Amino acid sequence: MIAKKMVKYVEGSSVTRAMFEEGKKMAAKYGAENVYDFSLGNPSVEPPVAVKNAICEILEKEAPCYVHGYMNNSGYETVRSAIAASLNKRFGTSFGEQNILMTVGAAGGLNVVLKTLLDPEDEVIAFAPYFGEYNNYVANFDGKMVVVSPNPPTFQPDVAEFESKITPKTKAVIVNNPNNPTGVVYREETIRAMAEVMERKQKEYGTAIYLIADEPYRELAYDGVTVPYLTKYYDNTIVGYSYSKSLSLPGERIGYLVIPDEVDDFENVICAANVANRILGFVNAPSLMQLAVAKCLEEQTDVAAYDTNRKMLLDALTEYGYEVVKPEGAFYLWVKTMEEDDTAFVARAKEYNLLVVPGSSFMCPGYVRIAYCVDPEMIKRSLPAFEKLAQSYQ
Amino acid sequence: MIAKKMVKYVEGSSVTRAMFEEGKKMAAKYGAENVYDFSLGNPSVEPPVAVKNAICEILEKEAPCYVHGYMNNSGYETVRSAIAASLNKRFGTSFGEQNILMTVGAAGGLNVVLKTLLDPEDEVIAFAPYFGEYNNYVANFDGKMVVVSPNPPTFQPDVAEFESKITPKTKAVIVNNPNNPTGVVYREETIRAMAEVMERKQKEYGTAIYLIADEPYRELAYDGVTVPYLTKYYDNTIVGYSYSKSLSLPGERIGYLVIPDEVDDFENVICAANVANRILGFVNAPSLMQLAVAKCLEEQTDVAAYDTNRKMLLDALTEYGYEVVKPEGAFYLWVKTMEEDDTAFVARAKEYNLLVVPGSSFMCPGYVRIAYCVDPEMIKRSLPAFEKLAQSYQ
Repeated sequence: MIAKKMVKYVEGSSVTRAMFEEGKKMAAKYGAENVYDFSLGNPSVEPPVAVKNAICEILEKEAPCYVHGYMNNSGYETVRSAIAASLNKRFGTSFGEQNILMTVGAAGGLNVVLKTLLDPEDEVIAFAPYFGEYNNYVANFDGKMVVVSPNPPTFQPDVAEFESKITPKTKAVIVNNPNNPTGVVYREETIRAMAEVMERKQKEYGTAIYLIADEPYRELAYDGVTVPYLTKYYDNTIVGYSYSKSLSLPGERIGYLVIPDEVDDFENVICAANVANRILGFVNAPSLMQLAVAKCLEEQTDVAAYDTNRKMLLDALTEYGYEVVKPEGAFYLWVKTMEEDDTAFVARAKEYNLLVVPGSSFMCPGYVRIAYCVDPEMIKRSLPAFEKLAQSYQ
Repeated sequence: MIAKKMVKYVEGSSVTRAMFEEGKKMAAKYGAENVYDFSLGNPSVEPPVAVKNAICEILEKEAPCYVHGYMNNSGYETVRSAIAASLNKRFGTSFGEQNILMTVGAAGGLNVVLKTLLDPEDEVIAFAPYFGEYNNYVANFDGKMVVVSPNPPTFQPDVAEFESKITPKTKAVIVNNPNNPTGVVYREETIRAMAEVMERKQKEYGTAIYLIADEPYRELAYDGVTVPYLTKYYDNTIVGYSYSKSLSLPGERIGYLVIPDEVDDFENVICAANVANRILGFVNAPSLMQLAVAKCLEEQTDVAAYDTNRKMLLDALTEYGYEVVKPEGAFYLWVKTMEEDDTAFVARAKEYNLLVVPGSSFMCPGYVRIAYCVDPEMIKRSLPAFEKLAQSYQ
């Protein structure tokens, strides 16, 4: 009786549920402390205490009907102004409140952008490996996903293949920087090359190609690496942001879109995005959390904690003989599997109580993703298991 | 450059924006206290103080990564259990946590249900007048809206016409009780008659017809009237609920769906709804607010305050010669316009600084909606304007 489009999701969902149930069984059998779950991107670092203080201060000082009431579907003007000013200070941009649309997390923001832009059969390009949900978001609006192949060992986008995949139907390009699942940060020269290609193709086809920058991991960068702010390289850029990782608030569903004045058809895009936010059923981003994040724009998560985890896993896995992509951002380690079939590798890892995600989930078989946003003690306890898993392939 | 589907929304949106700008100009010209805005359904009653206390207690006692972190896409199990228990106590139902799916408000919930059920061209029946956003929600999934005509003066659904409009393509029926915009509460006998028709048509066509009960106004009922709980009358009922009105939290986007064990294809429906909640970009209902409302299930909004407003407007407008539907629920007054063209009537009302919404917005021309969730002092100040408007038609 459910929609035909939903049937495949229900089938996929039962696989996930089976894995989850198996994880629970493993925990019951071996003890929770002896099962090493590296599958989830749920921040292990607590939100800065400033978040709690901000919420309490708002509840204490502001009128409840203001704090919990409807506002413009785009969000509170004061919040949008504060975010614009903060971005301008950090990146030398010149956004105003009219460029900021508060969203129900980055996932909400991406759906708003795609609803705004996509006609059926319009093409959206993404670079493998990428977050598998993009496929679903694009399918929501009957768009067609076009995948640029993985580019090992650097996993920087392959600009030549990218160019070859742009057609007159290309409406949008999604980049996720720093990248989930590889942890790679796309370089400024890569971004420049991509921008040059898109400019050229826009002229050639007389179309608009929107670059969607999905940036929930922006603040998680290591070794002093710089994450380019994409609106500065390509006019037709829309940024999707979330506080899920930077303030450890993934359950709160709070983020924003930046739609710069410079994008093609700006007036219509911003207006349609505002309507899309409403009619998709978001209506507006959660009100109290909008006000709270606006008070925490200078706060930072404890990147050093993730960095410690990163180094510990990277050093150990390299020592055990794994081929690991050195991550410069996000909180994922991207590891080549020791046999071709990544799902078989994931199954064997489970025999050692290690839970990791197969690269196939990110359109890139032959790898696994290890989320290191976990308790460092669990990493320490897990290392012998990683070692034994490697030895089992020798 | 925007999606073709979005063009009409952008056009509609500029009309709304123009109205809003005109409202601001009026306030500047005549003074804000001399402009009487009855256009918005934004609760004027403050949230119960228990909401603030609950939030503070949660922030004080619970671990931040639990309060603000990811949980199952359906919501916290403890929250869903508490809501199920509360419903069971109030309505004699027997729901468990497996029947509750926490959503980003009722609007989010309705989109989740429609994504779950609708194939393109599937038909969804609604009873005019109804909340215009239903058209957009159904269009999101390429469904076809089928409208049952308004049934004055009671505005109870016309069951005979309803039956005539059910076809083998009818996938869902939306009822909103108490009703926005009429304030009418659908009677138990109407519900029974509708259920009997749907049961019969399901058998005749061998289909499943899902009744979607949109119930954000459930707790706003006056004169001791009972609002039937629809799962008790028809097995294939899915309830959409929101705390926007009952706890005055419209900006927080917090609500839930009830999907009873008895609905056709339950296992697939609940699983698909859970996936739909994720892939539409909601991911999960805002986490802190889930925990907060679970602590406020016994709280009530100040219905008496709305009732005072209701009586004041109803009595005055009746005295001035308006034909008013006596509302038994929600916070809207549904008034016959004194000329056939409701948009002309709305324009004339504006000359008296009265802002009301034309019935055409609710698929029912010839009426206007007056939202009385406002400061009672504004109602008092506005009465002479309503009187003059009526006199202008004599």
